[in-house]
Amino acid sequence: MLAVKAQDVIGICRHLAGCSEEPGRTRRTFLSPPMRDVHAYLSSWMQRTGMSVQVDDAGNLRGVYRASSPDRPRLFIGSHLDTVSDAGAFDGVLGVVLAIALVELLEHRPLPFSIEVVGFSEEEGVRFGVPFIGSRALAGTLDADLLSRVDANGRSVADAIRDFGLDPSCVGHARADDGALGYLEFHIEQGPVLDGLAIPLAVVSTIVGQTRLTSTFTGSANHAGTTPMAARRDAVAGAAEWITAVEALALRTPGLVATVGRVLTRPGATNVIAGMCEASLDVRHASDDTRATAVDTLRRTAQQIASRRQLTVRWDTHLDQKSVAMSPTLVTALERAVAARGVPVHRLESGAGHDAMILATRMPVAMLFLRSPGGVSHHPDEIVLEGDVAAALGTGLAFLEDLAEAHG
Amino acid sequence: MLAVKAQDVIGICRHLAGCSEEPGRTRRTFLSPPMRDVHAYLSSWMQRTGMSVQVDDAGNLRGVYRASSPDRPRLFIGSHLDTVSDAGAFDGVLGVVLAIALVELLEHRPLPFSIEVVGFSEEEGVRFGVPFIGSRALAGTLDADLLSRVDANGRSVADAIRDFGLDPSCVGHARADDGALGYLEFHIEQGPVLDGLAIPLAVVSTIVGQTRLTSTFTGSANHAGTTPMAARRDAVAGAAEWITAVEALALRTPGLVATVGRVLTRPGATNVIAGMCEASLDVRHASDDTRATAVDTLRRTAQQIASRRQLTVRWDTHLDQKSVAMSPTLVTALERAVAARGVPVHRLESGAGHDAMILATRMPVAMLFLRSPGGVSHHPDEIVLEGDVAAALGTGLAFLEDLAEAHG
Repeated sequence: MLAVKAQDVIGICRHLAGCSEEPGRTRRTFLSPPMRDVHAYLSSWMQRTGMSVQVDDAGNLRGVYRASSPDRPRLFIGSHLDTVSDAGAFDGVLGVVLAIALVELLEHRPLPFSIEVVGFSEEEGVRFGVPFIGSRALAGTLDADLLSRVDANGRSVADAIRDFGLDPSCVGHARADDGALGYLEFHIEQGPVLDGLAIPLAVVSTIVGQTRLTSTFTGSANHAGTTPMAARRDAVAGAAEWITAVEALALRTPGLVATVGRVLTRPGATNVIAGMCEASLDVRHASDDTRATAVDTLRRTAQQIASRRQLTVRWDTHLDQKSVAMSPTLVTALERAVAARGVPVHRLESGAGHDAMILATRMPVAMLFLRSPGGVSHHPDEIVLEGDVAAALGTGLAFLEDLAEAHG
Repeated sequence: MLAVKAQDVIGICRHLAGCSEEPGRTRRTFLSPPMRDVHAYLSSWMQRTGMSVQVDDAGNLRGVYRASSPDRPRLFIGSHLDTVSDAGAFDGVLGVVLAIALVELLEHRPLPFSIEVVGFSEEEGVRFGVPFIGSRALAGTLDADLLSRVDANGRSVADAIRDFGLDPSCVGHARADDGALGYLEFHIEQGPVLDGLAIPLAVVSTIVGQTRLTSTFTGSANHAGTTPMAARRDAVAGAAEWITAVEALALRTPGLVATVGRVLTRPGATNVIAGMCEASLDVRHASDDTRATAVDTLRRTAQQIASRRQLTVRWDTHLDQKSVAMSPTLVTALERAVAARGVPVHRLESGAGHDAMILATRMPVAMLFLRSPGGVSHHPDEIVLEGDVAAALGTGLAFLEDLAEAHG
């Protein structure tokens, strides 16, 4: 029965991947027209499972499955419905579809707590360059600044909300009430770890903190033919030495990942020594101290390299986000549920940010990762295995039963 | 008297810098409208010195100063009149203005050889992406392929020639006759060597050969947060290691310069491990063997780095240009002339390409470099010193007298 439901879940995710702003590939940004089709499809299914459904004024799809009595607390289960450009079929959507499938598996049997399934309107940050618009509304942290932020066409978040037929002045009503039992999110791992270990599921321990910055090396642009090696102040050579040091530090620091993903050279001509080289840096670790120390070390390394080469280096930090621990109680409950399914219990840090991170300010949160074969993420080749989806459904059911007993 | 003439030369160069396609900065590409003003200004001066002037069908300004009798051989003296974008006032133009000033210093006294001053229409390669259009015409190597090459607006070289009122079908007539005495070019050094040695002039020994290529490292684009360091195939990290090796090889190989001036990352996002990184390479050395060996070593290094990191590397060579030796006879004559002026005799390789390189297929060539204070080149801050210009004029006169004696 879980195997059949797992096939349904995968089929629905694949179907929803067709709701896209672009023919032939999946792209579904904040409140874009295809989001309406997704809402329509999921709403009708949610209603059949017994949920009352609405779309809040931040564009989140929300369905409530009533508790055995009205005064009971609420468990939120969800993930996001938006996608990156040229996305796979499972990142985000899978968590929402799994949540509805779980409720469906309850077959209208009420639990001693209500369940609210949430399909967040925005997590990826594609349209406005800032992620988590949906979960910020639930957390009550979607402020006027963010509402006035504009996309590439000059439309603000508030405009987009209005364009979708919603009322941005009512976004405050989207805030989750106090006293929630917690928030559970199913999500694909987006990395190769579970696939490497041949394990279907992982219970997330922490969402790691991250620093994002740009380091800009400045030297002197000069003729590549007439400037002797010893007389150069080559910004690219300095940046290359530093990028090598970034990788070396991450390789020798357990759990640290550090990435230079973007390099920009100026003037950027084959026959001109670059006077300027900009390199991005992304550093993540579960421990905020380890991360801060690493960033510090890399900054000092950049300064040493620059000063030895008569360059200057500028350091612009764009993001400095602390790590977010999952609720120990929910983690333990989730691990019990995994074990009850006969699946090896594995804890994993999440290297990526998730809506759970935003909701952690309002309620206890937990996440269950499903293996990403090949570690493929943000790519049309992204897949999930049927057996893993069945294991996730079983784990979810066991978790709900466990919670029902505790609150019975 | 040479000091006064040197001030004139600098003043004229500064004046011509105002003949530009852009207000406030100097940019004068192949047969652009301001080239007409340069031709008009220089033609009238050339005629006053006793030259008969014409513009050939490749757009080169050419003035002939007659010999003492009609059967005497010809000495060409010149440089280019086009500029890069946001250029200085001396690169190219100085060589033409010095040539005319030299003829003026002869005060209508005929020599036992004719002198043809050439202001080449194109050397920098800005408009059509291919340099040396002017000198190729004199060398007889301006072919139909090059004539049909188009600029950013879809106009071909032939169109540009027609637009200027010239006839592209007559470009063959621009070819220099056989039996020339040689070609002499004055040019700024465009590098810091003479300035470092506090020497005003250098006699060029060789124009170094150069290789230009792109090496493209390909790995796998992946999530910067969820992909452990050990599981990465990071194209930027591979390229950075290689760029460091490029610099190290050049530093330990005497006379070699190797430059990575342009780096391109794909997808090029802060939070995505780059799946592709393209790096340009420019390698130059006076010895073609040393250059070939260096390029070979760097290719093997790239392959080793790529294979260790499970990347692939592609190698696209765009230019493989042999070094060009100056005429030993003319070099010796030029050195005698430099010594006669009481200036320290210094030989220098040219790390940059020059028109002399193109003409070397047709006649003996020689070049005299003038010190570039600060090594500044292709920049509005480019300057020359009055004393150095006077020394160049004096050297030029001594060279002409020496040659007159030899052919007297």
